[in-house]
Amino acid sequence: MDLKDLHEHYKEYLNKTVELEGWIKNHRKQAYFGFIDFNDGTCFNNIQVVYTNDLNNFNSISELRIGSAVKVIGTLIESEGSGQSYEIKASDVILIGGVDDDYPLQSKGRPTREFLREIAYLRPRTNLFNAVFRIRSISADAIHKYFQDNNYVYVHTPLITTTDCEGSDQMFKLTTLDMNNIPTKDGSVDFSQDLFGRLAYITGSGQLHGETYAQAYKKIYTFGPTFRTENSNTKTHVNEFWMIEPEIAFCDINKLMDIEEEMLKYVVNYVLEKCPDEIAFCDKFVSNGLKERLTSLINSEFKRISHHDVIDILKSADIKWEFTPDYNEDIAKEHEKYITEYFNGPVFITNWPKDIKAWYMKVNEDGKTVAAVDLEVPGAGELMGGSEREADYDKLVQRSKEMGVDLDKVDWYLNLRRFGTCYHSGFGMGFERLIMYLTGIENIRDVIPYPRTPGNCDF
Amino acid sequence: MDLKDLHEHYKEYLNKTVELEGWIKNHRKQAYFGFIDFNDGTCFNNIQVVYTNDLNNFNSISELRIGSAVKVIGTLIESEGSGQSYEIKASDVILIGGVDDDYPLQSKGRPTREFLREIAYLRPRTNLFNAVFRIRSISADAIHKYFQDNNYVYVHTPLITTTDCEGSDQMFKLTTLDMNNIPTKDGSVDFSQDLFGRLAYITGSGQLHGETYAQAYKKIYTFGPTFRTENSNTKTHVNEFWMIEPEIAFCDINKLMDIEEEMLKYVVNYVLEKCPDEIAFCDKFVSNGLKERLTSLINSEFKRISHHDVIDILKSADIKWEFTPDYNEDIAKEHEKYITEYFNGPVFITNWPKDIKAWYMKVNEDGKTVAAVDLEVPGAGELMGGSEREADYDKLVQRSKEMGVDLDKVDWYLNLRRFGTCYHSGFGMGFERLIMYLTGIENIRDVIPYPRTPGNCDF
Repeated sequence: MDLKDLHEHYKEYLNKTVELEGWIKNHRKQAYFGFIDFNDGTCFNNIQVVYTNDLNNFNSISELRIGSAVKVIGTLIESEGSGQSYEIKASDVILIGGVDDDYPLQSKGRPTREFLREIAYLRPRTNLFNAVFRIRSISADAIHKYFQDNNYVYVHTPLITTTDCEGSDQMFKLTTLDMNNIPTKDGSVDFSQDLFGRLAYITGSGQLHGETYAQAYKKIYTFGPTFRTENSNTKTHVNEFWMIEPEIAFCDINKLMDIEEEMLKYVVNYVLEKCPDEIAFCDKFVSNGLKERLTSLINSEFKRISHHDVIDILKSADIKWEFTPDYNEDIAKEHEKYITEYFNGPVFITNWPKDIKAWYMKVNEDGKTVAAVDLEVPGAGELMGGSEREADYDKLVQRSKEMGVDLDKVDWYLNLRRFGTCYHSGFGMGFERLIMYLTGIENIRDVIPYPRTPGNCDF
Repeated sequence: MDLKDLHEHYKEYLNKTVELEGWIKNHRKQAYFGFIDFNDGTCFNNIQVVYTNDLNNFNSISELRIGSAVKVIGTLIESEGSGQSYEIKASDVILIGGVDDDYPLQSKGRPTREFLREIAYLRPRTNLFNAVFRIRSISADAIHKYFQDNNYVYVHTPLITTTDCEGSDQMFKLTTLDMNNIPTKDGSVDFSQDLFGRLAYITGSGQLHGETYAQAYKKIYTFGPTFRTENSNTKTHVNEFWMIEPEIAFCDINKLMDIEEEMLKYVVNYVLEKCPDEIAFCDKFVSNGLKERLTSLINSEFKRISHHDVIDILKSADIKWEFTPDYNEDIAKEHEKYITEYFNGPVFITNWPKDIKAWYMKVNEDGKTVAAVDLEVPGAGELMGGSEREADYDKLVQRSKEMGVDLDKVDWYLNLRRFGTCYHSGFGMGFERLIMYLTGIENIRDVIPYPRTPGNCDF
């Protein structure tokens, strides 16, 4: 039996014998009785187990440490205490696995998040990370549900690739060669001896491959791990993260924004419904007002405005910017923040200067901007980035050349524009950024189970 | 509007104007009228579009090639033809994107699967691969649904790792170093200059990390890509594949088998319900009797038998084996096949000789076997492999030493046995193997969108 079932149907179990296996989360003992906060990990809220000195093994129970695995047998009764409406009156508490002296989570103080990162294999046992990683799981479920219910095909785009969407200087190289004895030929690495017979990378995006499937199924999405070699130690960078990349044929940028808005609201609403205890905890201990922010997002209408008009607003604001707003440049974090506050809600910023965006985006009729769209969300910053893709072969080839793309490596991608091409759009959403938004957690290392950052690859 | 919606609710649309965007799958034209088999990719079955020479652009419509993207506007009418009960009488067919002369799927012959692998970016447009990759998507959905509905936490275990569960000789090395100019120190690679400051790998299993989360949530699962460097060119090997690895605390090997059986039946049933057209197609063109095999699996009771007893059966069989059955050895493919035929259904084989199984498996009381279990399925071979894990610290350390495991690298994993350890079990299922079983496809390269095999890393 799972504790979750007991919590959900406790009335059915009242005055009946129940049996649970799980861990001791807290333990207060007195001379004649003791209280164990028990949880088996299937839900956020503990249950209180009361034991008294009429049990034969009262003394050994009272010595059980926090973190021990135990089997609890007892009767579910209405509680006289103030903290809960029911509890288990134990007839036995049996030790399954004890805890050594050096268990790092035994003390009652609240360990720092930095310390918990060093014991990442234990941190999901704490209330905070238990909440965060359940929200992560439920969010992933919501994303799959949204796309599957709307008849998108889930595509597993390859991780190992010889094509690069984001630029190979950002990608990890992958090899089976003996690095202490790299074979060479004519003075450079002889990759013919590597497993794939050539230099391979681990991918930074599944978009290009995703587009090939959108041309077959109309609506597809990816959801998988992604890698960047960025040597950057900030609160928002990790070298391995998960990304969702939907791609939709016969879809222009306006419809794309409809989809992004609908999906995000669906996911936020799903998490609010499925994780009320976890969200309440994060609201209280991580980010005050979290629940209200999430609820307000569901009920808001996302604003749509061009990059040009955003710059107008920023320029006319009575603020001394660290970075001067510029019609030809990206916007800075301070600008993102101002704009979402200005509109008091999420903002789609469209039609970006083409030179700061990717080569596959559709150039607008003005010849200066591309049909790209970033979604800025209050408290989260840029949550999604997407665009309508260039569907015309000649225009795409020309643009690729201008941007220095190696045409030989993407010939198959370009061919899509010669074989039944159609207008189509897609976006990418960093999954960790979404989880940061949903939990209020400010450091990306605390929303992914085993964060990989420069110099850090433990466990 | 999606064609899928139209098919599902066609009665509501009869005699009404409909508008669809998609591709021409087939085209038969005559002097005064023509038929287009149209599909937008949202479902398996095409719809027939009829156009006649009272349309102004009759001639240009009649020249449209297979593979072209078009917009169809017309009236949904009851069909007089024999192949379908309704069709679209076109009032217009507008070309969105044409097809160049060299489009490889334009001819009407059936291309070989080998050829289609060379144009992997186009193959989901064929009936066969369209069916296969939709089944793949729906199967993934089923797996997430099963585990989420049963309150498992989905854990994203890391892909980049310095720990190895399966042995680092099986893992790709990952580097940001310039391979033409590898920095050295004291005669060997100076990994301090690599992004993580040490040699990193891309993982072959998420199990060890998964166990750490099972100790927090009781029930978890992973579902992600996995990598092996095996230099093997067979029908069943790829170097990148997807795997599902559930891990359950307070679960012994018997309960594990219950879960495996329940999950597999759930997934097969879900696919039969959601993909009847795709399964019917595979039954007809890929593997006769497929649907019957899948249906029979749902209704069968999985046999449970020890490795020892399997060897007994194999030895007493009146067959000249290529590989002699041996109580201390693994069983061969010919044995797997015989055993599932012998029991006429899926078979769990338990209690394997410890020397041929992994170091983390629980040694049984006999001291010779481990509490491992492989599931053999008729027509699929070994579909899942799992075990109860060794939960005792001292026994696990001893076994690790015997098997040559580097204890320093897995100290955190061993620590789980000192901090509230409990009996627990888990299994792994290769996702591609499942899809091969569900489609009848015999080559693993044909069930993953972009297969990576030795010497092959195109696209």
